[in-house]
Order: sequence, then C-alpha cells, then structure tokens
Amino acid sequence: MDLKKLLAEFQTGKISLDAILEQFKNLPFENLEFAHVDHHRQMRQGFPEVIYCEGKTDEQIEKIMSAIMKKESTILATRAHQKLFDKLHKKIPRLRYNKPGRVIYQEPNIKHPEFDDKILILCAGTSDIPVAEEAYQTAYTLGFKPKKIYDVGVAGIHRLLHYREDLDNALIIIVVAGMEGALASVVGGLTPTPLIGVPTSIGYGASFGGVAALLAMLNSCAGGVTVVNIDNGFGAAFAAVKYLKKTIAR
Amino acid sequence: MDLKKLLAEFQTGKISLDAILEQFKNLPFENLEFAHVDHHRQMRQGFPEVIYCEGKTDEQIEKIMSAIMKKESTILATRAHQKLFDKLHKKIPRLRYNKPGRVIYQEPNIKHPEFDDKILILCAGTSDIPVAEEAYQTAYTLGFKPKKIYDVGVAGIHRLLHYREDLDNALIIIVVAGMEGALASVVGGLTPTPLIGVPTSIGYGASFGGVAALLAMLNSCAGGVTVVNIDNGFGAAFAAVKYLKKTIAR
Amino acid sequence: MDLKKLLAEFQTGKISLDAILEQFKNLPFENLEFAHVDHHRQMRQGFPEVIYCEGKTDEQIEKIMSAIMKKESTILATRAHQKLFDKLHKKIPRLRYNKPGRVIYQEPNIKHPEFDDKILILCAGTSDIPVAEEAYQTAYTLGFKPKKIYDVGVAGIHRLLHYREDLDNALIIIVVAGMEGALASVVGGLTPTPLIGVPTSIGYGASFGGVAALLAMLNSCAGGVTVVNIDNGFGAAFAAVKYLKKTIAR
Amino acid sequence: MDLKKLLAEFQTGKISLDAILEQFKNLPFENLEFAHVDHHRQMRQGFPEVIYCEGKTDEQIEKIMSAIMKKESTILATRAHQKLFDKLHKKIPRLRYNKPGRVIYQEPNIKHPEFDDKILILCAGTSDIPVAEEAYQTAYTLGFKPKKIYDVGVAGIHRLLHYREDLDNALIIIVVAGMEGALASVVGGLTPTPLIGVPTSIGYGASFGGVAALLAMLNSCAGGVTVVNIDNGFGAAFAAVKYLKKTIAR
Amino acid sequence: MDLKKLLAEFQTGKISLDAILEQFKNLPFENLEFAHVDHHRQMRQGFPEVIYCEGKTDEQIEKIMSAIMKKESTILATRAHQKLFDKLHKKIPRLRYNKPGRVIYQEPNIKHPEFDDKILILCAGTSDIPVAEEAYQTAYTLGFKPKKIYDVGVAGIHRLLHYREDLDNALIIIVVAGMEGALASVVGGLTPTPLIGVPTSIGYGASFGGVAALLAMLNSCAGGVTVVNIDNGFGAAFAAVKYLKKTIAR
Amino acid sequence: MDLKKLLAEFQTGKISLDAILEQFKNLPFENLEFAHVDHHRQMRQGFPEVIYCEGKTDEQIEKIMSAIMKKESTILATRAHQKLFDKLHKKIPRLRYNKPGRVIYQEPNIKHPEFDDKILILCAGTSDIPVAEEAYQTAYTLGFKPKKIYDVGVAGIHRLLHYREDLDNALIIIVVAGMEGALASVVGGLTPTPLIGVPTSIGYGASFGGVAALLAMLNSCAGGVTVVNIDNGFGAAFAAVKYLKKTIAR
Amino acid sequence: MDLKKLLAEFQTGKISLDAILEQFKNLPFENLEFAHVDHHRQMRQGFPEVIYCEGKTDEQIEKIMSAIMKKESTILATRAHQKLFDKLHKKIPRLRYNKPGRVIYQEPNIKHPEFDDKILILCAGTSDIPVAEEAYQTAYTLGFKPKKIYDVGVAGIHRLLHYREDLDNALIIIVVAGMEGALASVVGGLTPTPLIGVPTSIGYGASFGGVAALLAMLNSCAGGVTVVNIDNGFGAAFAAVKYLKKTIAR
Amino acid sequence: MDLKKLLAEFQTGKISLDAILEQFKNLPFENLEFAHVDHHRQMRQGFPEVIYCEGKTDEQIEKIMSAIMKKESTILATRAHQKLFDKLHKKIPRLRYNKPGRVIYQEPNIKHPEFDDKILILCAGTSDIPVAEEAYQTAYTLGFKPKKIYDVGVAGIHRLLHYREDLDNALIIIVVAGMEGALASVVGGLTPTPLIGVPTSIGYGASFGGVAALLAMLNSCAGGVTVVNIDNGFGAAFAAVKYLKKTIAR
Repeated sequence: MDLKKLLAEFQTGKISLDAILEQFKNLPFENLEFAHVDHHRQMRQGFPEVIYCEGKTDEQIEKIMSAIMKKESTILATRAHQKLFDKLHKKIPRLRYNKPGRVIYQEPNIKHPEFDDKILILCAGTSDIPVAEEAYQTAYTLGFKPKKIYDVGVAGIHRLLHYREDLDNALIIIVVAGMEGALASVVGGLTPTPLIGVPTSIGYGASFGGVAALLAMLNSCAGGVTVVNIDNGFGAAFAAVKYLKKTIAR
Repeated sequence: MDLKKLLAEFQTGKISLDAILEQFKNLPFENLEFAHVDHHRQMRQGFPEVIYCEGKTDEQIEKIMSAIMKKESTILATRAHQKLFDKLHKKIPRLRYNKPGRVIYQEPNIKHPEFDDKILILCAGTSDIPVAEEAYQTAYTLGFKPKKIYDVGVAGIHRLLHYREDLDNALIIIVVAGMEGALASVVGGLTPTPLIGVPTSIGYGASFGGVAALLAMLNSCAGGVTVVNIDNGFGAAFAAVKYLKKTIAR
Repeated sequence: MDLKKLLAEFQTGKISLDAILEQFKNLPFENLEFAHVDHHRQMRQGFPEVIYCEGKTDEQIEKIMSAIMKKESTILATRAHQKLFDKLHKKIPRLRYNKPGRVIYQEPNIKHPEFDDKILILCAGTSDIPVAEEAYQTAYTLGFKPKKIYDVGVAGIHRLLHYREDLDNALIIIVVAGMEGALASVVGGLTPTPLIGVPTSIGYGASFGGVAALLAMLNSCAGGVTVVNIDNGFGAAFAAVKYLKKTIAR
Repeated sequence: MDLKKLLAEFQTGKISLDAILEQFKNLPFENLEFAHVDHHRQMRQGFPEVIYCEGKTDEQIEKIMSAIMKKESTILATRAHQKLFDKLHKKIPRLRYNKPGRVIYQEPNIKHPEFDDKILILCAGTSDIPVAEEAYQTAYTLGFKPKKIYDVGVAGIHRLLHYREDLDNALIIIVVAGMEGALASVVGGLTPTPLIGVPTSIGYGASFGGVAALLAMLNSCAGGVTVVNIDNGFGAAFAAVKYLKKTIAR
Repeated sequence: MDLKKLLAEFQTGKISLDAILEQFKNLPFENLEFAHVDHHRQMRQGFPEVIYCEGKTDEQIEKIMSAIMKKESTILATRAHQKLFDKLHKKIPRLRYNKPGRVIYQEPNIKHPEFDDKILILCAGTSDIPVAEEAYQTAYTLGFKPKKIYDVGVAGIHRLLHYREDLDNALIIIVVAGMEGALASVVGGLTPTPLIGVPTSIGYGASFGGVAALLAMLNSCAGGVTVVNIDNGFGAAFAAVKYLKKTIAR
Repeated sequence: MDLKKLLAEFQTGKISLDAILEQFKNLPFENLEFAHVDHHRQMRQGFPEVIYCEGKTDEQIEKIMSAIMKKESTILATRAHQKLFDKLHKKIPRLRYNKPGRVIYQEPNIKHPEFDDKILILCAGTSDIPVAEEAYQTAYTLGFKPKKIYDVGVAGIHRLLHYREDLDNALIIIVVAGMEGALASVVGGLTPTPLIGVPTSIGYGASFGGVAALLAMLNSCAGGVTVVNIDNGFGAAFAAVKYLKKTIAR
Repeated sequence: MDLKKLLAEFQTGKISLDAILEQFKNLPFENLEFAHVDHHRQMRQGFPEVIYCEGKTDEQIEKIMSAIMKKESTILATRAHQKLFDKLHKKIPRLRYNKPGRVIYQEPNIKHPEFDDKILILCAGTSDIPVAEEAYQTAYTLGFKPKKIYDVGVAGIHRLLHYREDLDNALIIIVVAGMEGALASVVGGLTPTPLIGVPTSIGYGASFGGVAALLAMLNSCAGGVTVVNIDNGFGAAFAAVKYLKKTIAR
Repeated sequence: MDLKKLLAEFQTGKISLDAILEQFKNLPFENLEFAHVDHHRQMRQGFPEVIYCEGKTDEQIEKIMSAIMKKESTILATRAHQKLFDKLHKKIPRLRYNKPGRVIYQEPNIKHPEFDDKILILCAGTSDIPVAEEAYQTAYTLGFKPKKIYDVGVAGIHRLLHYREDLDNALIIIVVAGMEGALASVVGGLTPTPLIGVPTSIGYGASFGGVAALLAMLNSCAGGVTVVNIDNGFGAAFAAVKYLKKTIAR
C-alpha cells in the first residue's frame, strides 16, 4: 500500500489531512450493488478475481465479467454452462470455452513455457475427466500449461507404472479420482513430487457423492498428500500455480 | 433334520403322535437361561458356535464354553482379554491364546494340510496386525492354515509387487488395511484371486474409526472386492473357510 | 509377462538393449486419449474390462467398446440406459440388453453348464429386482448361469424356508435386499453356503439411500457374510464368478 | 383438575377471588431448587415420576427420591450404579436392585397378575441382556410382570420358531437387539402381536453404537414395528405398560 | 398350520407320506415370478398384504393387486400416484383414492364403529397433512376410523391444550410432525394415552429430510413415546390397528 | 387473557358457570380444517402468523392468507414462488413481491424510522443474496428497515474492514454466508454489536448443503455468535426484530 | 484508534515518521510466546479476553491470567476443573469458583442492578444444570445477574406455564435443554421475548452427544429462536450480555 | 533402479540370467516379520521412512528404528509418548524429544539454512500448539527450519494483520486451526503464498472432533487452500518440505 510514501507526502503537505483519510477509504474494489469486484486482488494475491458461476444469474455474471475486463487481462469463469458461454461469446468474441471442464476463459497474455508439463494432471477414470479438465483449463489460463494422463486408475496399476518417469519430472502433480480415491496414495508412494488430491463425486451408493474418495485422500498412508474439496479441479490448479509463481519469484 | 425318517417311524407306529410333536419341539439348543447354545449350528452351517466375548461377563463365557465343549471339538472365542484366558486356562489347560489377535482357541482336531497357504492374509501396516491375527487364528482353528504377508501397504508398492506370485497362488485373499484402505483395490487389480477386504480402525481424525477404509473398500474400482465390518478379522476368515469347505465338498 | 524368455532372447542377441527397454514400455493397453483400454486385464485378472456407463458420454462408451471388441470376446456394460443400447444395437446387432438390470452384453462364447444354478440369487422384494438382474446378467455373461428366487423377504419367512434346499445346493449365494436388509442374516444362519450381501437403495426416510441395509449386512450376526456397495449387483456377481473360476482352476 | 367444582365453590362464595387465583398457581409440583418434582404426573399421565440417574449427583438423586416417596408409592430409578444403590439401600431398606438392568426399584403395591407374561421380552444375544432387564424391571415395578426369552437371534432362527406360540399369546412384544437388529423384522412377520423394537449399542465398527440396529428397525419390512431410542429398555416397557393400562381402563 | 390334524390324518393313512411331504411344501404363497404374494399373511399376522408402490412398475402393481383380490377383501396400496389410480380405477371401479395421502384402497368390509375416534391423529402443521392422511386412510381401510386434529404444533400451544380431553379419550395417539418434532414430547407429557410418533421430512437445511424430527422423537423426555420411520404414516396406523385388534381379541 | 376480570364478572353473576367454561374453550384460533390460524399470536408473541409456503398447496395458502387478513394488518409469506405471487396479486393488489428473496408481503402500517439501518445485513458472496433478501424483507415488513452490505466475504478482508464503522453503529448484525462461513467469526471479533449467523447452502461437495457453514458458525471462536438454520434468513430477521421490539418496550 | 488525532500530531511534527510507523505496529496485544493476550479486545468488542481452559496446560492458563489481570478487572475462565481453581486460588485469593458450572471468576467491579433478572435462564432437566450455571456465571461476572428457573422440561408443561409471567418480563431468555430440546420451541411460542437456545449433550444413544437437541432447536417451528453450540452456556450468556450492553448504550 | 546398467552387465555376461532374475527380486526392503522397513523410500521418494507410533508396541518401534538407523541418518517418530522416548533415549542418547509435539527425532545432518523461516507455521489458539509443533519438528528434522507465529486466530484479526509481511515472505504457509478453522480462509485471502490447512480436533460439541474445521478449510472461499487430515501436523510439514525440495532440485 506504500503507506510510508503516502505519509511522507502528507508530512510535506502535498496532500491534506482530509485527503489522506480519504485515501485510506478509497480501497480498490468496485461496488456493483450485488457484488464487490475485488480489483485489489491482483496486487494482494497475485491473481485476478475468478468467477464461480453457480448460484449467480447470467446477468450478474455478465456485469461482474465486464467490471473485471475493464481493469484486468485474465478471465476465468468456472462451472459455466454452454448456454451461458454462447450468450457471452456473442458479446465478447475472444472468450473461449472448455466444454468438458465447463470453463469460460480467454487465452492468457502471459505464458510460462519453461513450466510447460511441469504440472501433471492424472485422473483415475474416464468419468473423472470433467474435473481434470477444470484443473487443466485453470492452470492454462493462468499461464502454466499442464501435462495430462487420463484413465490410469489403480485397478490396472501397470498403466500407472508405465508413466513413472513423468511423475518424477513434474514439479507438482494433481491426482483426480473418485470411487475409493486410491490413486493419490499409490502415486504419493511412487515419487518425491508434491501431490494435490482432488476427490470427485464419481461413484454411487456408499461413495456418498465423493465423501469416500475425500476421506481416502485425507487418510492417505503416503506422506504429504494434500487435498481440496470434492470436484474442485479449480482449487487444485490454483494451488499448483501459486507454488510455481513462488518458485519463479525466488 | 431327517424329517422323512421321523415321519416314517411315526407312520409305522414306532413313535406316537405326542412323541413326534415333542420331537419337533426338542430342537438341539441348550438353554443356559442367559444364552441358547446352538448345538444345531454344526449341522445347519457346518460350523460350531463361536463366542464373541465383548459384552459378556467372564462367568457367562465360561458357562457357554463348557456347554459347547460337551458336544463339540472346536473352541473359538474372539475379542478375549489376556485375563480371561489366564482364568480359563487354569481350568482347561488345552486352551491356547493368540495374544495380538486376542483369540482363545484349541488346536483343531481336523486339519486340511492340502489347503495350507491357500488363504493369504495381507496387511497394510504394522498397526493392522491384531486384526490380521484374528483372521489367521480363526482360519487356523477351523482347519485351514493361512499364509501371512504383513506391512505391504501401497505407500511402498514395490513391496507388494514382490509377492505377486503369492497373490495368484492363493485361493482366496484377505486384505487387512486401515487409513485409506487402498491396498484392497491395488491387490484386486493385480490378481484373479477372490478377495475379502477388512477395513481396520487404524487411523485418526477423518478416518472416523475405520469408516474411511470401509468406504474405500466398498467403492473399490477393482471388480469383485467384498467387504466385512471394521476390524472384523474373524468374519473375513470365516467367509474364506466357508468357501474352501464348499470347494472340498464338491 | 514371460520376462525370462525375453531376457534369454536379449542375452543371445536376438533383441537389442534398446529393443528390450522398448518392450518394457509397450505394455498391453491402448490409449484412446480419454481412456486406457486395458487389454492386459484378461491375462492379469482372468476377466476382460467391464464398462461402467454412468458418467461417460455415449461417444466414449462406443469407442471403448470398439477397442475391446477388437481383441476380446466378452462384452459387458452396466448401468446402460435403453437409448444407449438402441444406438449401439443398430451398429452391433449381436449386442443384447437386460432391461430391468440395465446391462448391455453379448451371449458368452464360453459357458460352464456344470455350474448352472450354482450361484443362487435371492432378493427380498419386487423393488430389488433391478439390482438382482444386474447380478444375474453379469454372471451369465461371464459364463455362469445363476438360479433366481425373488421376493422372499423376512416379513414372510415361510417363503424363504420353503427354498431351504436351494440354499444348501448352491456354491455361493447373493442376497439382494433393501430397507433393513435382514435377509442376509437369516440366510447366513440357515446354510453353510458362503454368502455375498448386496444392500439396495430401496426404502425411504431413515434408509438413507441404502445405508440402513448396508450397515445391517456389515453387522450381520451370522458369521461370514461379506458385503459389496449399495446397488452393486455387478460386484457381487463378479466376486462370485471369481470364486467359481478358482474352483475350476483347482 | 376439577375446575368445575372449584368454580362452583368460588361462585357460592366458599372461596374468595384471591384464593381461587392462588389455587391456580399452587400447582402440584415441589421445587427442590435444582429439580421440580412433578407430583401432578400421577394424575396427568397415570404414572409417577421416574428418576433417570445419569448426569445427576448422588445427592440430587437422594433428594428427588425422598420428595417422591413422601407422596407416591412407586419408586423407579434407571441407569443406577451399584454404589448408588448401596448408599441408598442403607437409608431405605425396602429398595431393591436389578443389577444387570441397573434399576433401583421397590416392590410394587399394585400388581396385575392377569397380565403376567402378556408383555413378552425377547433379546437377540447374551450381550443385549442389560437392556432387556431394564425393560423387564420397569414393567415389573409398574405392576406388569413380563415373560423373558433371551438369546434367540436370527442367526439360529429355529430357536425363535420354537417359541412361536409365545409370540402369539403375548399382548405386546419388546424385541431387544443390537448388531443388525434383524430380530424385529422376523418377529414382526411371524405374529399379529404389536411389537416395540429396542436397538442396543452392542456391536463394533460400523454398528456405530447402535445406529445400525436403530436404522434396521426403523426400516423394518414387517408392518407396524415401532421403535425407541438405542438402549432404551425403560422406554419400551413404559410404552407397553401404557397400552395395557388403557386396555384395563376400557 | 394345523400340524396336529395333518399328522393325525397321515397317521390314519388318509394321506400318504409323499402327500404330507408335499403339503409341507405347498405353502400358501403364489409365485408371480417377480413377486411372492403372501396369502398366508392374513392367517399369520391377521392382516392382508399391503402394496408399497414405490420402485414397482404399474404393471407389477396391477398383477399383485389382482392376485390379492382373488383371495382377500382388503386392498391397500400406499405411495400411489394419481396416474396409477386413474389407470387401475378404470379396470376396478370399486377402488378409491385418498389424494393427499396417496393411498389406493377399497371401502372396508368389516368395520369396528365402537372404535371410531379411538385412534387420534394429530399433526403439527399444514405441510404434514399428506403423512397424516396416509395414516388415516390405512387405519380406516383396516376398519378403524380415526379422529383427526391438524395444525396444532407447539409454537401455539394453546391450540393443543384446547383439545386436551380428546387426548385422554383416545386409546392410541399418532403424532405427525416435521421440523423439530416437539409435538410428540408435549403430548406425551400431557396424557396417559400411548403415543406413536411419525417424524416427517417437512423442513429444510438442518432438518436433513426429517432426521431432526426423528432424533427428537427418539430422545423424547416424555416416557413411552415410540417412533416409526420418517414419513411412515402407514406404519404408525398399522401398529395402532395391531394394538386395537389385540384389545378386541382379549 | 384477563382471567381476573372474567372471574369477577362470573362472581357477580354477570356470566354463568356454563358461559365461563365456554369462554375458556373459545380460544382465539380459527379452524380452517387443514390449518388452525393463530389469531392469538399477535397478543402472545407480539407478531402475526407468518406463512411458510413450502409444502402447502396454493389453495391452502390463499385460504390462510384470507383468514389472516380479516383480523391483522401484516402479511408475510416466505419461500413463495413467482407464480404463486402472480395468482394472489390479481386478487389482492396491495401485495408486493421481493423476487430474489421469494417473499410476498404488504407494505407495513407501522414503521420505526428511528431504527432504520440499525439492523445490518452482511452477506459473503453474490450467491448468498437470496437468503439475505429474505432477511431484509422480513425485517422491513415488520417495520424495521435494515441496511445491506453485500459481497464482503473474508477472501478479500479489506472490503469488510472498509465498513467497520457500520458494524459498530448497528444494534444487531445478521451475517449471511455459505461455503466455510468464516465471515461470522471475523465480524464477531471486530465489533461489540450482537450478531446472528445465517449459514447458507451455497457451496458444493463437502459443504454438504450448508452444513460446513453451519458448523463453522456454531464453533465460532468469536464469543456470542448465535446461529439459525441453514438458509433461514426469515428466522434471523425475526429474532432481530424481537430484540428491537423489547428495546422499544423498555 | 484515534487515527485522526495521531495523524494530526504527526502533521504538526509532534511525532516523527518513524514514530508514527512504530505506533501502527505497537498494537495492544502482548506476546506470551504461546499466546497473544488481546488487550485490545476491551476496546474493540467491549469485553475482556475470556480463558477457555480445555486444551491448555495449568501453567499456560496461569500466565495468561496474570497478563490479563495486569490490565483488566474482569476475570472469567470457563471449563476449569476444581484442581486448577485450587491451585490458582492459593496465589490469587480473590478468585471465586462456580463448581457445577466449572467457572473461575472474580466478583465484577461494575454491576447493572437495573438489569437484575432481565436475563432469564431456563433449563429442562436437573442434568442440564452445569451448562445453565456456566451461562449464569458468565452473565453475572460481566455485570448482569440472571434469574434462574430449573427443571421445567416439556414433559410436565404445567411447570413451565406456571412461570409464564417471568417469560414476558425478561429482556432475553436462555433455554438450556438436552435430549429432544423441545423446550426452546415451546417457550418461543409462548412469549415475545427473544430466546437463545443452548442444546446440551445430556442424553444417550440417538441423542449423539447433543446433536438431536441442536437440530431440534435449529429447526424450531417457533420463529426467531437462535442457537449456540452444544453445551455452550458461555456463548449464550455472552450473546445476551452483548444485547443488553447495546441497549444500555442507546 | 539403474535398470539399463544392470541389463548391460547382463548382456556382457558379467552377471548370469539367474543372477539378474534374483536382482529383480532382492528389492531393498528388510522384513522384520511384523514390518517391512522400506530402505528404498529414500531413493523413491527422497525421504526416509517415518515411524507413526500409535498402534505399535514399544518393542516394534524400537526394532523398526534400529533397522532404519543402520542405513539412514534421519530419524523421525511421531505421536510418541514421553515414556517411549525415555526408554529409547537411554539406549540411543542422540535422540531428541519435542514434548508438546510428541515427536522423537535426531538433529538433522543436512540443513538448508537459506530456507530458514521460509515455511511459516501459524496457529489460531494456544490449544492448537501440539499440532503446530508436530509440523515444526517434522520440517526441522528434514532440514527446513520454519518460523512460528502462534495464537493469531480471527477473533482478534489485528493480531494477524500485524504479521502480514511475514505471510508474503514465506514460500509456504501452514495454518493450524480448530473450532471453525476460519484462519485458513482469511490468510488465503491476504497473501499469494501457497497455504496448507491443518484442521485440529480442538473444540467441543458440534466441532465433532475437528470435522467443523476440516469442512471449513475444504470449503474455503480463498482459492488454492489445500488441506490435510485433522491434527496431521506431520503431513502438512511433509508436503511443505516436498515442495521446497523440488524447488531446490530445479
């Protein structure tokens, strides 16, 4: 916030007492009545605001997106239905849509090709792909293109062992798995690469909408597995990007 | 029940109407007031009654055991504390005790050496051993000596792969695992041998006393995994023995 | 994997170092991008890959099925809707459909008539039939034709007692029951035949989508009851077939 | 409350306006500061106040008991430990103790011998006896002596069928069962006698302290099974007595 | 089953050994392939079979109903949608429909007018009426016409106190309540009449589909409240009728 | 109820014994058969009856509303769909509709402008607005116009700190938040103003329909946070108004 | 924080740039290494820091208490065992102990006698008293002496109706109840006084440690009931005092 | 595994066919009968085996530790009681003990001082310290000394804001919090530094042993929060070290 500089200017009379008090109040968020768009976030967290579409009306999403686009270059909207995309796309042609992942995005301005394939996304079964794609598109849109290896669940463990080198080459692995979620433990035991587990709601009966996989990952016997919410591909990718950005910054 | 024979005797007047009605009533169980010892079970199920010790007083267990010993040659009492064994052992010197498994038993009369090692018991970690031993001792006491391979959890999957031949050689595998219970899925994917999973209460926090492992095994992506109650080593071994007895009978 | 033979060829110079390393990589699975079809499974587990249709697009299912059909003769797809079958049937006329069980299959090449009726499928009520039929069709398609006795729940226990001989004649029993799932315990107490319980989601209120029946079966007072996931008729039949195949192999 | 009589006396001036207002306030409960002993209950519900001992200090229980004994002839205290009984017994020698049921009581003044054995208490296993005895002693102390048949769980269903006549002869049956609680459904299907299920906390793992049995009884496929809280032998007997008292009153 | 008579006939040669064995097998149920209609139930339980319509196809329901109608005079089908009734009504004009309660029934042959109003059905709110009506129609169809008092929840307790005399006059009370289910406890404390609680799924959020009301009723501080499954109006009425039939039989 | 006056009139013979007994019975509620409209509530609680629309038919709601409107001037119906409003509005033009909050109301007769903005409603995200609006409209209709600050969740805490003065100026704060519900704890730590938390069902996966937020608020480390049911904006506002009315009355 | 004054002094040179920056950092909390005692809280929230003793060592509690006592006059430590009090009392003789409520406190400096009895604490049963006393002692120590009415549960509702005037006279009511927690709904329906429910862990079986009462209160059919965590007598009293302080401040 | 080198030696005849097959079997784990010590892990994961002491006997732990010490230089044993340490310390004097964290360790050989303070451990309250110390000691023993800031929960958010610079300077933050776990969301919103949440079992009632905090963290509205099991300080630190090791390796 550069408080010191502000106070120095105030001390030298460049700005008045009223003005400095006003400054303290004029925080960088924009009030849309139903939403406070957080332009400050880029500064504070290093990321722009992401739009989680569920529970918002199309009208609200459009207004929030417009507000963001005025000041920022990254657009990322998750859990977005095809119809919403079609509507927005007509007005904003540069928007793109990842259909299985249900993500609206725009091609990133800044890319980090030296980190291509350094995020590795594994998924256990074909049905887990939508969550894996949400993770993929999130990382991609934030400038970090992941590698994807899909359908390598533990019921046919040779499929996974085949890709063992990829596990070690990655800087961070995202494991997407439903049902019993065992893939996270097996991968965690095979490689020193840090790993984020994403339980999915794939399954039925006693999978309880992903709870079985969530508990499995939280109780992983492989050390150092961290976990995000059920179906939260976005969150896993976001965490992965945070790590890589810290690594770059160092 | 040999109903036909009974009716024939009745038809020929060997036994009276009252007598046959009485016969129907004199079912082979013995009323100890607090317990109906089920001598019929050997005939009906092919197994003697097993004593589950928790929730019973020492005095009750002793009386039930005496009633069983009068008519049957197999003694199996699970969840039995050392003190109970010490007390009973003084009176019945042929009793044996599996300490980690907390099982009181007597050396079986009938053994099936051709099935030695045909039940394979795996456990994921050292802490799961008590449950694995309950399974071992149950099968052993019923005449079927299992093979044991302990501490081969998925966090170091090469340990498991090392024993792959044993997986295929067994007729039935019992997988004992707590925490995230992933071992059942991995073994189930590696071998055509049928598999019974025993989730254990090993773990903490979101393992919820074994629920995480239970759910994982119920949701196993490997086909044909069946499951018993948390920590129920007895039940898994009992089911395994049932299968082998049917195989013998064929 | 015939590692020994491979190494011998390598030793004698028949294949080069690079070639043998390549061999180790060319594992028998086929990458469809969204799915790794596991042709190895037949060797490893003795069963072909089964398609679980929920969460997959029709297009994905069709591609997976085509890949399987090129190399294997067993087709089994569960949780398949009528529309999917109709679509596939036009292209692959030899496909069959079990409507109540929602299973797409093809008539098995290899049958084991000596095991006809050796798997016995019981269900408690009329509403449990879809799950029982999934079990039936799975076993049938894998070559083992089960016997079916439906609607013999414990509220009218004489119906069950009537079929007592069938219980003893089977090599393995599958008990399908919703609501309070008591049928598994009663059958388990009546016969020495091993038993797999399938809780169903039939019920309302405090049945919690099958949890009541699942817990009942896991806590069965009859020894040796093993359990699969709620509504998992496929899994129970698959486990039963695994047992019978081991018996045959012996 | 005899409001009419009170008003008539007031109308004729026998009692003053202040007096009648006072009357309305002097309701028949006694304030012990920490407890309002409800002397009115006998009138209102036809039963005296019962003392549930858990969570109360010995001193509080003694004071409440003294207050009750001044005005009523029935003493019933449940969940009472041996030590508490020993302490109270020294001061009040006519107190009795049911040790397995943990009930302090005094021999009832009024008995209904014509209803002897008309409440039938069944329990599934030896470990369920404490709850069954709480039920027994409650009914006995309120004047209705039940018949008891213990250890007739469904794993050996012939034991139960043996007593079928008793099921039909009872006016009301209390079924006490832990683990999977299937006994309630089987009995409910065998007899027209109304039935109250008492799930017990006997079991381990996925019995969740009695939840499995509770859910089973609530979902019973046998019509007309009603249920009380886990381990609530008192409540079941209390309900049974309420029914019999209504029957008498008719 | 009149076993004695059967045996006597057999003894006197009236029936052969084969015939008597056959008799034992010809139990009174009719196999519809998908359902065993239980004609024996009337004898065994004193009630005909009731059709629970959920999870059954219209075709199945119609066949079961036809089978029942051939031998019995009571028709009761619960959870039946309007369309099902319309379809059946065309073929069987004497069928009736309770729309809010979703019950198909026929006017009972046998009525017990001396028990009119002796079952009292209370419900807490207007939204609980469908469950209350299911209870009403069940009792009515079985010959016992209940009294109904609706919308007397505890938030306005004077409404309930107003009907206090009715509480005492009933032989049995059914309390139907959702949300926090407190009505059962309050009524249970006001009257000696036995009481069956029916929790309903009315509510939202932390009512968890009726679990809050279910737990409340199971934990009622008023002694002797028994409980049935969530929304199970049928079960409560069925239990109530069982009590009254026993009372009549005495 | 002015009991004293009534008794005095009775004493002086102004009213007869029968009449006074009748008076006691004629309590101020109106029986609509399916609903007891509680006209007494205004006297007893200081509030008219509020209509919770879910689970009621349109016809029932209309009748209840008509009954209320004859005697009271406040109309408040929550969880009301647009179609219901359209239907009612045609007949009763003075009705108003808060669309996001799904509340039908009429402009209040009595307002308390000195308490404008004294209830402060915060919500964490745009998706929580419907619940916040239900709270707003409830308070408004009861005469107390709240201040609203929306979309100030803790992920951008500077947005909240910006409004710190508003927190202190309010007499009571309503915090509406889904997901992890942390806003309640943060606000509770920032201000001495009492606070009611409303968890919302916004979220997915392990939010379990609002349970995560509910638990968070119940476990708030900030002292004195009280909580209402998930999505219960009405309840929070109703409680807030109760406090303000007591404050006025003092 | 008087930011304006600080800035003015800075502007006039009274304090230097470094000094003002330092000021911003010297926030009023004291770092005890393991705990940050929050002296600022009195200013921010109007309350001193309260010590929750569970999970803290005696040594930690003593240090925190010493730090607080240097700057503040209110001492309140909840969940404190007798031994802890005895130890502290020797060193700080002015400490007092509420034994049933397990609260260590010191007699308050500032009292508000005009609010005596304006907080009304009700509890349902004798076993709920410890939680009620925690609430009592919390409010007392913060200067507001509550009125207590104990053991007025709904099973004997006339006991509650007797105290109806007290309900209306209070400014705020705290209802402490375990088991089914119905007291909150009944009181909420009887009076316009705002009400905070405290569910207690009193109960067994399906009370799940207070969950039944918690859910009941959250689903209360009486409008405007707010709830705190299970057994959280402190929290309820703290909220009540917050309301009264706001009322005074007005 | 240096497969290539091995094969080359084999090709050149340096080792025989039998020998190479033997090599493939002699995997680097040591069988202690009850445990397979995994010496391979250091190679595979870059970390030695860690001993989780719960559920293991003292004798087992000692044997495992001895086996590890022969080949590796890092010793880390978590959940170790004081008595165990005292026993081991006598035999192995270089062992150290972190008492609040219950960790036995030895001073690390390899340290990374350039990463001192780059892991930042925050905890919400004094009671959370044991978990925070487990995290601290784990990271320390693996060569990465964290910075600790304790007792900065959100109820006094100025305490946290005071340390804002530390949040940004860290490479990774571990947030340890019980109760409502809100600290993770607030920190996650304040800084771009990646964050691992550790919910603790601190709390009571509806905290359900840490479930409330776990759910809160999983549902965090701040993007990119990942979570480990309840009380799993070890797991969080292990994940953090994995990230830093990857960063170093780059």
